[in-house]
Amino acid sequence: MRIETVCTGDELLTGLTSDTNSAFFQTQLLERVGQQVCRSVVVGDVRADIEEALQIAASRSDAVLVSGGLGPTSDDVTAECAARVGRVPLVESRAARQHLVQRFAERGLTLSENNLRQALVPQGAEVVLNEVGSAPMFIQRLGEALMFYVPGVPREYRHLVAKYVVPRIAELAQAKGERAFRELLLLKTVGLPESHLDARMQPLISAHPRVTFGYRTHLPENHLKLMAEGASADEAKAALQAVATDARAALREHLFAEGAQTMAGVVAERLMARGHTLSVAESCTGGLLSTRLTDEAGASAWFVAGAVTYAESAKQRWAGVTAQALAEHGAVSEVVARQMAQGVRAACGTTWGLSVTGFAGPSGGTEAAPVGTVFVGVSGPGVELVERHRWQFERDRVRSLAAHAAMDLLRRSLP
Amino acid sequence: MRIETVCTGDELLTGLTSDTNSAFFQTQLLERVGQQVCRSVVVGDVRADIEEALQIAASRSDAVLVSGGLGPTSDDVTAECAARVGRVPLVESRAARQHLVQRFAERGLTLSENNLRQALVPQGAEVVLNEVGSAPMFIQRLGEALMFYVPGVPREYRHLVAKYVVPRIAELAQAKGERAFRELLLLKTVGLPESHLDARMQPLISAHPRVTFGYRTHLPENHLKLMAEGASADEAKAALQAVATDARAALREHLFAEGAQTMAGVVAERLMARGHTLSVAESCTGGLLSTRLTDEAGASAWFVAGAVTYAESAKQRWAGVTAQALAEHGAVSEVVARQMAQGVRAACGTTWGLSVTGFAGPSGGTEAAPVGTVFVGVSGPGVELVERHRWQFERDRVRSLAAHAAMDLLRRSLP
Repeated sequence: MRIETVCTGDELLTGLTSDTNSAFFQTQLLERVGQQVCRSVVVGDVRADIEEALQIAASRSDAVLVSGGLGPTSDDVTAECAARVGRVPLVESRAARQHLVQRFAERGLTLSENNLRQALVPQGAEVVLNEVGSAPMFIQRLGEALMFYVPGVPREYRHLVAKYVVPRIAELAQAKGERAFRELLLLKTVGLPESHLDARMQPLISAHPRVTFGYRTHLPENHLKLMAEGASADEAKAALQAVATDARAALREHLFAEGAQTMAGVVAERLMARGHTLSVAESCTGGLLSTRLTDEAGASAWFVAGAVTYAESAKQRWAGVTAQALAEHGAVSEVVARQMAQGVRAACGTTWGLSVTGFAGPSGGTEAAPVGTVFVGVSGPGVELVERHRWQFERDRVRSLAAHAAMDLLRRSLP
Repeated sequence: MRIETVCTGDELLTGLTSDTNSAFFQTQLLERVGQQVCRSVVVGDVRADIEEALQIAASRSDAVLVSGGLGPTSDDVTAECAARVGRVPLVESRAARQHLVQRFAERGLTLSENNLRQALVPQGAEVVLNEVGSAPMFIQRLGEALMFYVPGVPREYRHLVAKYVVPRIAELAQAKGERAFRELLLLKTVGLPESHLDARMQPLISAHPRVTFGYRTHLPENHLKLMAEGASADEAKAALQAVATDARAALREHLFAEGAQTMAGVVAERLMARGHTLSVAESCTGGLLSTRLTDEAGASAWFVAGAVTYAESAKQRWAGVTAQALAEHGAVSEVVARQMAQGVRAACGTTWGLSVTGFAGPSGGTEAAPVGTVFVGVSGPGVELVERHRWQFERDRVRSLAAHAAMDLLRRSLP
């Protein structure tokens, strides 16, 4: 089975926007159908290039996902190109028009002539209404290929691809008897360089020949992706279970999450299981630690408050840091990190207090604590810990690593 | 002039790695040569697919950048494919071999047979030694097209593309008299749907025929990209200036930033210019507003502190919200948003106080303030404002829109 993608849009060819949609489709396709994309083409908003790309992709594929160029503006020409390649006229879809009229009315917006262009599809195409946007999706048969046209707006793309495109391709694969049985597991580790991770996996690789081992670095996390294949779903599952047991044993405390679980999610789970609460005082991370912790819904059950104590006055006011500690040790110091964790915990009356103070750069820093130095601290029942880090990275990355390190410190304090 | 790219590598088609190289080349090409890539293809490590991609690209382009598949392992087959498409044998490049031998010796590594494969190039190709890696770059003429082959490793790719590929393409463009002179400007708007933006630009499109108008949505921002062409750099600049003046006048208060400037950057600039300071009290955004405001270095000059007042107790403790207001109006209300902005401003002694309170969802909400309702408030010299929003989006997006709306409220309060 051959599957290709065609993305349209000048913005994808000028370095302005990078295509994050394709990775989403590729992952879904692999995980849910066991199929891999063979070829992916990006063309600008140029009719001749779009038409040629559609023609070439259709001439030798079973399924083609085409994205972008379905908007209301004059440079949105994908539907027009699809009609030309299919040698049919563009016609208005009544369902798509109704959907547009209703959507705009609900929002109190005026429907312009431009907006109505979004209801035009190649004659004979199957229209799928888009619950999360105005441009409809449509499916066109070109020769042997099934062409799926979806908007390029990431939110709409993801919704339509997951809900309609991938299931239709799965049906197609089933019909062709080409559906592979694969089972995937992602194991997330921290504190283990990729080469060490690889070395720990070497004995497992020979012991599990039907499993593919993949690595992916998401600093500071290293992810191990295990993909087991089998002649049936049960066989693939059994192979995966066997390798997962061995891998968990080899990774031990470095393994902090599996699958879609995140570091923040693990911390949340452990706090909730104990009925504990948390407050945070952070400086160089500027709110990022609180943001990550509250990313998932339900955080209000355990997250009480966060103090972004950028100025020294704020560290004293909200996190109980003493003027003496600031004067003697400086804001970026073990003493201040400890006081922040203790102070915010006491002020908020929470089970745990977590702190970050550091120099994210690019300027700042002292002799004792050069740029990239970060202290993370935790205060809780019977636990008072501060860890010192030093990262020689740019500002963004230091902030991100610092927030991660603080959460990991709390995770390890909640075994 | 027609320029295309071909990237090879299974990892680019399985959602594991996203291609960040292409954006680098595209940006360099646009900025240094005034040319845009017409088409970009990604294929897996499959000989037939690579060869076909090379053939198609060569058949109609002036220059093709091919990346990936030049490593030492058995799935690195690009040089082999290039030789087959060019109908020449693979031959060992003496210079490339010497480079490999020397590089390995310097590092005290043993050179294997596999490593020596990296010295093989299509007969007749021009070899360019790679100062930052072992695989050499080579340049091959295929019909009318100049094919540039570089490794896919980002560091090596960037080095070779910037140092050798782009200058050679610039020469080519000069020789063909096709060096276009282009000038780019990005105008960022808020509060203007894409179709309205397009409608406002219609009169300008006919008045400025040498300018290309492009649109891009980054909810809640809509960006207008203006690209002016001219026979000389001065002509392009003049054309851009003319259209920029008209566009600014048409967009008025909706235009909040240009080029790389961000909403947070604009707010920072305006605060700094006045010597003002800011404190923030935020609830549903969970720290995101503070994070965005402190993303750029130098925020400590004006950002004093942020209170992430998730629990009601925290709203009272840090943001001066009264128990009565909470009881009578609820935490998500105009009254509480106003008190939070005023309260945090008073507590921190800053020129401005900014607040957000809302229900980001998916659960929560009341009859008066259903899920997706967010109040943003500002308190400053002679200014007390609260705005109510309602977004029917998922949690992440509501949080992001709320942080943006708060910054925009402050921007409009600092004219």
